[in-house]
Amino acid sequence: MNDNNDKQLVNNVAVVGIGLIGGSMALALKEKNIAGKIYGVDANSSHCEKAMALGLVDEIQTMEEAIRLSDVIILAVPVNIADALLPRILQLSEGKVVMDVGSTKNAICQSAATSVNSHRFVATHPMWGTEFSGPEAAVTGAFVNKAVVICDKKNSAPDAVSLVESIYKRLGMHILFMDSVSHDVHTAYISHISHISSFALANTVLEKEKEDENIFELASGGFESTVRLAKSNIDTWVPVFKQNKENVLDVLNEHIAQLKKFKSCLEKENFEYLGELIQNANKIKRILK
Amino acid sequence: MNDNNDKQLVNNVAVVGIGLIGGSMALALKEKNIAGKIYGVDANSSHCEKAMALGLVDEIQTMEEAIRLSDVIILAVPVNIADALLPRILQLSEGKVVMDVGSTKNAICQSAATSVNSHRFVATHPMWGTEFSGPEAAVTGAFVNKAVVICDKKNSAPDAVSLVESIYKRLGMHILFMDSVSHDVHTAYISHISHISSFALANTVLEKEKEDENIFELASGGFESTVRLAKSNIDTWVPVFKQNKENVLDVLNEHIAQLKKFKSCLEKENFEYLGELIQNANKIKRILK
Repeated sequence: MNDNNDKQLVNNVAVVGIGLIGGSMALALKEKNIAGKIYGVDANSSHCEKAMALGLVDEIQTMEEAIRLSDVIILAVPVNIADALLPRILQLSEGKVVMDVGSTKNAICQSAATSVNSHRFVATHPMWGTEFSGPEAAVTGAFVNKAVVICDKKNSAPDAVSLVESIYKRLGMHILFMDSVSHDVHTAYISHISHISSFALANTVLEKEKEDENIFELASGGFESTVRLAKSNIDTWVPVFKQNKENVLDVLNEHIAQLKKFKSCLEKENFEYLGELIQNANKIKRILK
Repeated sequence: MNDNNDKQLVNNVAVVGIGLIGGSMALALKEKNIAGKIYGVDANSSHCEKAMALGLVDEIQTMEEAIRLSDVIILAVPVNIADALLPRILQLSEGKVVMDVGSTKNAICQSAATSVNSHRFVATHPMWGTEFSGPEAAVTGAFVNKAVVICDKKNSAPDAVSLVESIYKRLGMHILFMDSVSHDVHTAYISHISHISSFALANTVLEKEKEDENIFELASGGFESTVRLAKSNIDTWVPVFKQNKENVLDVLNEHIAQLKKFKSCLEKENFEYLGELIQNANKIKRILK
């Protein structure tokens, strides 16, 4: 790491949306001496108050004023809102850099393409999150050693991409480049299906809970691990599933087909094939240490 | 905690099956001064060597000799093997206490019922585990603050139940009592389905990996969390699913039905109902903090 970590990278940054990701990003920008002042923008006044109380941002501003005062604008709102805000933000961002951090990339890249100053936009997706939401969910050190995807970089100005790369490197992230269409296919498999699986597993068990409140006394680490994403926020995830509908449906159909193989093994008492299914699943050890 | 933690509870203990659970149990018995000598029994000679090398047990013995030398016999082998071994172990265990730690309880309680000395058997299930297996997976402090279920205690001698309770209390566990039939219903919801969901999710993503090796670069905490149980051991889990087939099928059918609701929402673009499904799943917050 020959990056000079002592030198502040940019003057000021506007973080639009001070929730889990925006708030954690604001904390990291400060901690890594990336920006001078951090301006927070959020339509939810309670989020603004909490962000100030928690010291996530230096000042709350209107979006227009925050953009005027900043070199970099980080869009960290739900993906449907990001798409809607982006044209207006780009209009105000001549010579600045605008980056988003959303979980889908194709829709926002299309939104950028039809906007003025579209080359000032860099589409990114840091691969980090938790099941919690809001400013109080923000944590320090969130992005270290995680991957971040930069999409469709050919549509962005080279200096904008370069600055965004510097910011993510300073955050300790591993940068991958991908086109936005491929990104949305891959994240359906690697992230979106995990959320649907957890939501559905929670609903499965909660359906049973109606009959017996006590079963949760038995819950241990395995249950918690597979179900924790079920706490994830509706405002974040409905727009993600909506935007990535086709890819998520593909994966969901495959997942249901895989579950039906287990069902069929049990119904037919074919425990040899059940073992084969488990042994195949064990191959995930190659990837998850 | 008025329990006198200084006093050794029993002389010697035989641990039959020195894998993840047996090995962790052996470590905890030593750490909490529950037993003097720990005798290890395992049909796999490589497990025996590792258990000695790792200091999990004091001595490797044949099952017969280990039982002769011990006051308490802990059966920590896969549930199908436990059922098969139990009658022979009970035959040798006049005046001793035999406890199992398996993930299903109905089959072993039935196996005990038809054995001699059946009242010396206490059916238990400590609600702890990881996705790893073998002696090298054993960890210290595994059972602290976890729940343990004791099943069908009316079929066990009161002094045997009392000793088992003392052991689990000394391990720092919270004891629940349940009949073995209810146990198997509840664990299908709270544990077994999580494993099937993870196995199937791993197979879903591995199926995709055939097309593109690179998607795992994107994997982050959420994916790891929902898929980690897919590393779990075939020898442990096939017998569990086999023994608890009917309950697991009930839950699996419910889970597939819940996933189909998500599928239907996406297909019909009914995002309002999708939001309701997510909000319902969020109720798991009441249980998982």
